[in-house]
Amino acid sequence: MKKHNFSAGPCILPQSVFKESSEAILNFNHSGLSILEISHRSKDFMAVMEEAQHLALDLLRLEDKGYKALFLQGGASTQFLMAAYNLLEKKAAYLNTGTWSSKAIKEAKLFGEVEEVASSKDKNFNYIPKNYSIPADADYLHCTSNNTIFGTQIKEFPTVNIPLVCDMSSDIFSRELDFSKFDLIYAGAQKNMGPAGTTLVVVKEDILGKVSRQIPSMLDYQVHIGKDSMFNTPPVFAVYTSMLTLRWIKQKGGIAGVQKLNEEKAALMYGEIDRNPLFEGFAALEDRSMMNATFNLKDEKLKDLFEDLAKVAHINGINGHRSVGGYRASMYNALPKESVEVLVNVMKELETQA
Amino acid sequence: MKKHNFSAGPCILPQSVFKESSEAILNFNHSGLSILEISHRSKDFMAVMEEAQHLALDLLRLEDKGYKALFLQGGASTQFLMAAYNLLEKKAAYLNTGTWSSKAIKEAKLFGEVEEVASSKDKNFNYIPKNYSIPADADYLHCTSNNTIFGTQIKEFPTVNIPLVCDMSSDIFSRELDFSKFDLIYAGAQKNMGPAGTTLVVVKEDILGKVSRQIPSMLDYQVHIGKDSMFNTPPVFAVYTSMLTLRWIKQKGGIAGVQKLNEEKAALMYGEIDRNPLFEGFAALEDRSMMNATFNLKDEKLKDLFEDLAKVAHINGINGHRSVGGYRASMYNALPKESVEVLVNVMKELETQA
Repeated sequence: MKKHNFSAGPCILPQSVFKESSEAILNFNHSGLSILEISHRSKDFMAVMEEAQHLALDLLRLEDKGYKALFLQGGASTQFLMAAYNLLEKKAAYLNTGTWSSKAIKEAKLFGEVEEVASSKDKNFNYIPKNYSIPADADYLHCTSNNTIFGTQIKEFPTVNIPLVCDMSSDIFSRELDFSKFDLIYAGAQKNMGPAGTTLVVVKEDILGKVSRQIPSMLDYQVHIGKDSMFNTPPVFAVYTSMLTLRWIKQKGGIAGVQKLNEEKAALMYGEIDRNPLFEGFAALEDRSMMNATFNLKDEKLKDLFEDLAKVAHINGINGHRSVGGYRASMYNALPKESVEVLVNVMKELETQA
Repeated sequence: MKKHNFSAGPCILPQSVFKESSEAILNFNHSGLSILEISHRSKDFMAVMEEAQHLALDLLRLEDKGYKALFLQGGASTQFLMAAYNLLEKKAAYLNTGTWSSKAIKEAKLFGEVEEVASSKDKNFNYIPKNYSIPADADYLHCTSNNTIFGTQIKEFPTVNIPLVCDMSSDIFSRELDFSKFDLIYAGAQKNMGPAGTTLVVVKEDILGKVSRQIPSMLDYQVHIGKDSMFNTPPVFAVYTSMLTLRWIKQKGGIAGVQKLNEEKAALMYGEIDRNPLFEGFAALEDRSMMNATFNLKDEKLKDLFEDLAKVAHINGINGHRSVGGYRASMYNALPKESVEVLVNVMKELETQA
């Protein structure tokens, strides 16, 4: 019996991707070899890496616009320091919208001055700050597009004259944006793209090479670009599985196709949170994330009953993060609408039984 | 038809590991969830991480001796810089035995003075230098236990009064050593342990915290130790598969058990290289690697015939690295003795047909 998996990440991927990646471990491309035992320099894997890079740029509509796509290791947490290592000469501007922004700020401070242009910490990050000013002399502005823990999402990105850097770990490939507004996008794979263990980095080449410090090879975007993401052994399986997911997105009609489904799921979910008198949403209405819906029971006494009903319905992973409490329904690209319907029905059932 | 896979890395893993990891992608631990979609904070995965760390220390006989085992991302290439970031205050000593040592030296130079205590570059790294002196005031000595590309392996490690750091990427868990001689051991998983995408770091805690520089969180061993290798989302699947391989080694009688088989395979392989008048070995006899046998055809005109015979016998991955040419038979733990017998028979068949 498959579960309805609302896990915040690592999280659900398309069922077809699970099937294909499972098969490739036994016999990859009819080669008689496992995807786990082939050389990363083999023709078969080079083709996987190329297709993954191509699909990433194609889906983001960034082909032939001076961008490169890299599949690196280390997670977005490594990008917190790599972004600063590669771009921060004197001062950088950071928008603080939650735990991950705060961590990015902490790492950047080792490399230069950090100006926090705005923060929503005053309300436990339940909203996205607006109308802040951005220092024109900053080396870049860093923001986090979607805040998994708090369930908020930036709907309108600032227009800036400095490079725009964005951590899109939890909403990449989930909605259409003008991605050419960004100069550096990074995203840990384990939400909308693949297994934990690789991070997509999409970088506009002309912003690089401008800091005076020496950068260790593995932390240098230009080194990875120079070797087409094969400077060292890449995480072969994670890249392969990400490529399968990107193919799936393409088949679904690209980002526009999955966005439509994501909007339907979010409407269903937030509709019930707002309708059901037993629940209340956590995030400010206008900043609600399409990926992660955070909500609480108004009456904590119903906790056990709600969680029992959810368990019986095969629902997994709806506990909220400890910094918010309550519940969080993560509705990444691969989560079927049916799973949201099941959760909504459980919420309705609770209302009947309470 | 399965191949005889002599690939230098990523490389063969036990067939039972392929089978179990393939199944876990469809249904992990009968949870109804894929190993790729579970939270790294779930009880099931926490148990995997603990077992992997425990097995690593247990197999190396380093439990209760002040060591910690970490499963990090980035490959040994990231350890080249992390070792220096965490340990190099003024000067470090490096033994240069090949491409990977040279790369480690290059990264360390960004952090302090590097004294190359010896190098075998004069003979294209076909031997291991001996009888060199080690500066007593160095922060540590770094060496590479096995040189995949050149087919050499350190048999006797220097006795030192400074911390001993060793890149064991290509021979970890393949032979018994007094691992307590080492203070920091690191090994990319993709040879004897698991899929590309995780690196085992075994570190003696008392050598840490002695440099004055500030270390970014993701590059700080103490940060990872403090969070039991879960500071950020670990590469779940790569850690799980590595754990399966470590279980397999344990079942084979631990390192002593696999060493016995490795010795038999190496004896068979080098026996044929030395016996067969058509071939010659590349590495110095006393420094030959038990993992990677490098050899050449004396007569290049036999190249096509040899490679055709190998192909017909379903042999994969014996082409030598471009810096050496010729052939390389990598005989990692999981390679069956039967595969070496097949290759030896092909070499004999060439002698008959030539």
